[in-house]
Amino acid sequence: MSKQKATNITRHAGATTRSDRSQLLGQRGCLVWLTGLSGSGKSTIAFELERLLIERGRAAYVLDGDNVRHGLNSNLGFSDEDRAENIRRIAEVGALFVDAGIITITAFISPFQKDRAQARDRLADGEFFEVWINTPLEICEQRDPKGLYKKARAGEITDFTGIDSPYEAPADPELTIANDQGSAKDAAEQILKRLEASDCLRAGSA
Amino acid sequence: MSKQKATNITRHAGATTRSDRSQLLGQRGCLVWLTGLSGSGKSTIAFELERLLIERGRAAYVLDGDNVRHGLNSNLGFSDEDRAENIRRIAEVGALFVDAGIITITAFISPFQKDRAQARDRLADGEFFEVWINTPLEICEQRDPKGLYKKARAGEITDFTGIDSPYEAPADPELTIANDQGSAKDAAEQILKRLEASDCLRAGSA
Repeated sequence: MSKQKATNITRHAGATTRSDRSQLLGQRGCLVWLTGLSGSGKSTIAFELERLLIERGRAAYVLDGDNVRHGLNSNLGFSDEDRAENIRRIAEVGALFVDAGIITITAFISPFQKDRAQARDRLADGEFFEVWINTPLEICEQRDPKGLYKKARAGEITDFTGIDSPYEAPADPELTIANDQGSAKDAAEQILKRLEASDCLRAGSA
Repeated sequence: MSKQKATNITRHAGATTRSDRSQLLGQRGCLVWLTGLSGSGKSTIAFELERLLIERGRAAYVLDGDNVRHGLNSNLGFSDEDRAENIRRIAEVGALFVDAGIITITAFISPFQKDRAQARDRLADGEFFEVWINTPLEICEQRDPKGLYKKARAGEITDFTGIDSPYEAPADPELTIANDQGSAKDAAEQILKRLEASDCLRAGSA
C-alpha cells in the first residue's frame, strides 16, 4: 500500500502523503484483525474497542458482517472460492482505511490461516494486529446468538466453522483473548493496551 | 448505510454511532464523485482537493485507479459486467468511508449514468456530490497522459470511453467543472466552495 501510494505522489506533485494524514489525525492507520468462531464475541468486542478509541479521540471504524456482507460483498456466497474472495476484499478495504489513517477493526470468522496471512501481507510491519478471540466451541455453541450452531448440527447449513468446516487457530497472533473468562469490555481494553504499546496511536510517517 | 448501522447499534449496546464519529472529526462523511473522460484531470483535481481539505484539518481520502484497480478490483477486467462491478464496489467502499466520517473523493471515468445513480442511491440526501469534470474530448486527447487515446485510435484497445464507447454526461450534477479553462487548483477550490456551502464540514448526526 505505502509503496503504491508513493507512486501516486510522484505523479501528482503536491499531493497529500500518508504522513500528512497521520499528522492530522495524530495516529497511524492500523488493522486490528479479530478472528474466532461464530459467537466468540468478535463483533461485540470490535464495537467496544471502537467506542474506547473514539472516547480517546481516535478515528476508528469497524468492518463487520453487517456493513460488508450486505454491501460490498453482497454478491458473494459461501463456497470456498467466495469465502476467500470475501476475506480478500475485506483485507483490501482494510488496507485502504489504514492508508487513510484510520484505526480499523475487522470482525470476521476468517477461519483459514492462508487468508489471514494474505491480509497481513497487504500491510507493512507493525500495521497488522491479529487478535484471536479464543472462546471455546462449547461456549460459542451455548450462546448461539444467531441460532446457527443449532442449524449446523441439524444439517440445515453446511460448511459451518467448528462443526463441519475447520477453524485454523492463529499460529502467532499479536494477541489472544480467552473471552470465556472476561467481558467484552475487558477484551477491548486488552486490545487497546496492545495498541498503546505500538506506534499506532502516535503520528508518524510509517 | 445509516439505516443498516442503526441495526448494529440495537444489537451492540453502547456502540459508537455515526454521530459520535462525526462529532470527533468535526465533519460529516460525504462522497465527492468525480466523473469525466480519461485525461480530463480527475485524479489531479482529486489530490488537489484532498490537499486543500487536509490543510484545513479535514479527514479526507482519495479512491482512484491506483489504489483500487490494483487492489480491491484487481480481479476485474473491462467487460461491461466487470466495469459495472468496478463502480459498484467503489460505491460500496465509498459508503463505508462516508459512514466512517471521511470526506471521500473518487476519481473514475464512471461513464454510465446508471452506475453513478446506483452510487448516489447508496447514500443519504446531501452526502453525494456528483462533479462532472467536463473537459472536451479534443483536449483530453491532446493531453493523452497515458497514451491511451493513441492506442484507442489505432484500434489497439477497444471500448474506450469517448472513442468507441459512450460517455453519458451527468444530467443534474452537483457541480460541473469546465476544466479546459482553469487549473486543477481552481477546480479543487470550486469543489471546496461547494462543500463549504453544504453540511459536510460541520459535525452532525446526519
